[in-house]
Amino acid sequence: MSDSLYYKKHVFFCMNERDDGRPCCADRGAQAAQEHAKRRIKQLDQNGEGKVRINKAGCLDRCDQGPVLVVYPQGTWYTFVDQSDIDEIIDVDLLGGGIVERLKV
Amino acid sequence: MSDSLYYKKHVFFCMNERDDGRPCCADRGAQAAQEHAKRRIKQLDQNGEGKVRINKAGCLDRCDQGPVLVVYPQGTWYTFVDQSDIDEIIDVDLLGGGIVERLKV
Repeated sequence: MSDSLYYKKHVFFCMNERDDGRPCCADRGAQAAQEHAKRRIKQLDQNGEGKVRINKAGCLDRCDQGPVLVVYPQGTWYTFVDQSDIDEIIDVDLLGGGIVERLKV
Repeated sequence: MSDSLYYKKHVFFCMNERDDGRPCCADRGAQAAQEHAKRRIKQLDQNGEGKVRINKAGCLDRCDQGPVLVVYPQGTWYTFVDQSDIDEIIDVDLLGGGIVERLKV
């Protein structure tokens, strides 16, 4: 663990950039979910240094369990179906410091 | 920290997807560096679950210090100039478990 974390919670959404062109998370609502998360964190004024960062990432290579996101530094992986799942991850984990057990992969 | 980390070292390269279109890490060799890292980790058979994952990410919002990458779960941020810097990060940090102090941001 670093002496000082630049982001308290750094979130990466898998956005389907598989090298072999096979479908992945992007076909399952990852982009809308990422945009929703980014917008909501901003609305709550929780984005930025010392707080939360919501990022897109290339393929995280857990396609069978997708769509997926990972929260660092803790290394918690989640799947999700809709915006209410994303809101629960935001409220319980990113802002609340807990874990959403039912969405963990 | 998670009970079990899916990747021992998960690396994200900032790849210039700023919302406002301003230049960022991609103008400073980030793509070539990411491709080099990914290729070398694969050649060393260090990619995959329980080992190392090299990813592209959208803008990590540290443009002034770019190009940058971040290594999780430890949360260490590095800048780099050329492939020999990337090789040093691979050898010392990703595979060696140390920190490359001179490249930290």
